[in-house]
Amino acid sequence: MAILAVGSIAFDTIETLTGRADEALGGSAIYFSCAASLFGDVRLVGVVGGDFPQERLDLFKARPVDISGLEIREGKTFRWHGRYHEDMNSRDTIDVQLNVFGEFQPKIPPAFRETEYVFLANCHPALQMSVLDQVKKPKFVMADTMNLWIDTTPDDLRRLLGRIDGLLINDDEARMLTGAPNLVVAGKRILEMGPRLVVIKKGEHGSLLFANGKCAPLPAYPVERVIDPTGAGDSFAGGLMGYIAENDDWSMETLKRGAAYGTVLASFTCEKFGVDSVSVLDRPALENRLAAYREMITVW
Amino acid sequence: MAILAVGSIAFDTIETLTGRADEALGGSAIYFSCAASLFGDVRLVGVVGGDFPQERLDLFKARPVDISGLEIREGKTFRWHGRYHEDMNSRDTIDVQLNVFGEFQPKIPPAFRETEYVFLANCHPALQMSVLDQVKKPKFVMADTMNLWIDTTPDDLRRLLGRIDGLLINDDEARMLTGAPNLVVAGKRILEMGPRLVVIKKGEHGSLLFANGKCAPLPAYPVERVIDPTGAGDSFAGGLMGYIAENDDWSMETLKRGAAYGTVLASFTCEKFGVDSVSVLDRPALENRLAAYREMITVW
Repeated sequence: MAILAVGSIAFDTIETLTGRADEALGGSAIYFSCAASLFGDVRLVGVVGGDFPQERLDLFKARPVDISGLEIREGKTFRWHGRYHEDMNSRDTIDVQLNVFGEFQPKIPPAFRETEYVFLANCHPALQMSVLDQVKKPKFVMADTMNLWIDTTPDDLRRLLGRIDGLLINDDEARMLTGAPNLVVAGKRILEMGPRLVVIKKGEHGSLLFANGKCAPLPAYPVERVIDPTGAGDSFAGGLMGYIAENDDWSMETLKRGAAYGTVLASFTCEKFGVDSVSVLDRPALENRLAAYREMITVW
Repeated sequence: MAILAVGSIAFDTIETLTGRADEALGGSAIYFSCAASLFGDVRLVGVVGGDFPQERLDLFKARPVDISGLEIREGKTFRWHGRYHEDMNSRDTIDVQLNVFGEFQPKIPPAFRETEYVFLANCHPALQMSVLDQVKKPKFVMADTMNLWIDTTPDDLRRLLGRIDGLLINDDEARMLTGAPNLVVAGKRILEMGPRLVVIKKGEHGSLLFANGKCAPLPAYPVERVIDPTGAGDSFAGGLMGYIAENDDWSMETLKRGAAYGTVLASFTCEKFGVDSVSVLDRPALENRLAAYREMITVW
């Protein structure tokens, strides 16, 4: 089943202790689409400025990503500049220029409005809901969010939570949203806010999946050389959502296996700058690493 | 198979944001013995002061723990006082009085010298080696260590690493010992220093097990109410070592399952102050939670 993906498209400047990438193609919708398109069709909706060279999206030529929902607005493309600390698990934002993304009003093309699987990348929750107002009968909607919206638009966020099936959120944000320092408590509280699936992302420490009143912890795939963790969360989302849509099912078994695919996709993303790894990956290479991960985490 | 356990016995004063325990029975050898004795015989060697009421060890009455190796020295028992931060994953040491533990020279009773499984709890590596000098033909020796010895007695520690089969170490210490910020790299480097098994403990984030050139990540068992994490690492060690000794085998499969038992025992320990949980646990209750953990972590 196809997935509608709505989110940011950006030029990222990324600094780490050992390297740097300048104006690399990034943004949540890009990472998500790279990952999810390994499972099936992705319909991308996002906005770029007049400065965006369309050939930057050539990376999707070999993938089933429909970019006809790309809006080109007068102005400059969203730019983000971040610098990672030595632990590669935390970073400082050096500069953000929202540019045309600051005026983004997602318009879902008529041809995309019957898509049953919808991913709402991190964005103002009112805009995320405006996407839901435009799609007809979504079967499974997953959203990401961030501390900014928890802090500044809590009512909109709570309304959004009542309209989605799955929420992806990182550990600090889960604590902030629920007031619970304990992540197991936090995950269960978010389930009570609406979603049937909650994934708390813990970076190098993996994730906690909550569904059907249960918690399933998944360790990260052990990566020896973390080059750039940017986009790992959105790649995880693409793997999880891609697998759910491919199977057209969200049983606990499918959710866990989808999270395992997401975990492995996140590990690939961390191994190169930007989308350099996840954009050239093919399904056999993904399955190979998944088999290795499966062997690692299989205890019985 | 029986396990010889050598380590500290202490009175711990523990403060958390929500509670406090004064002079609770603690020490690495106590936590380890509580956990390991759920699997088979444990032979405890440690030192206490003249102030130690022997009835404090009555908790071992219902367990196969031989306390005939307990040395009572003139002076006071080891005391430790710690205060946990809100995250329950870090703590400040308020006070340490080594007392008789500062003069500890482990003397292994003749009846214990042929024990094939040996656990050397955290202690000066020269003392850990002095235990090995006294045992005849150990089959599998596991040791714990800490930042103090990495820093102050690196040569002794390196010699110890050449004489043991398994090392337990926490994440910061693994980085410190190897100079590798990445834990996967750190674990593999420690394998090259001698042990066939390395477990990097990550507190609430679980553990990384290294053996046979491979890395297996294990998530922690999700605990909703962490009351006191003191001794979780030694309980983990007791579960792992107990399972290895029970099976008289250290194949990758046994090591992973042993680490799963250790993970579950650590979770019990965190749920009450001191040994209040792990000392009253029985094997059926352990197996129950292990089954729940197994269900959680089974993806395929």
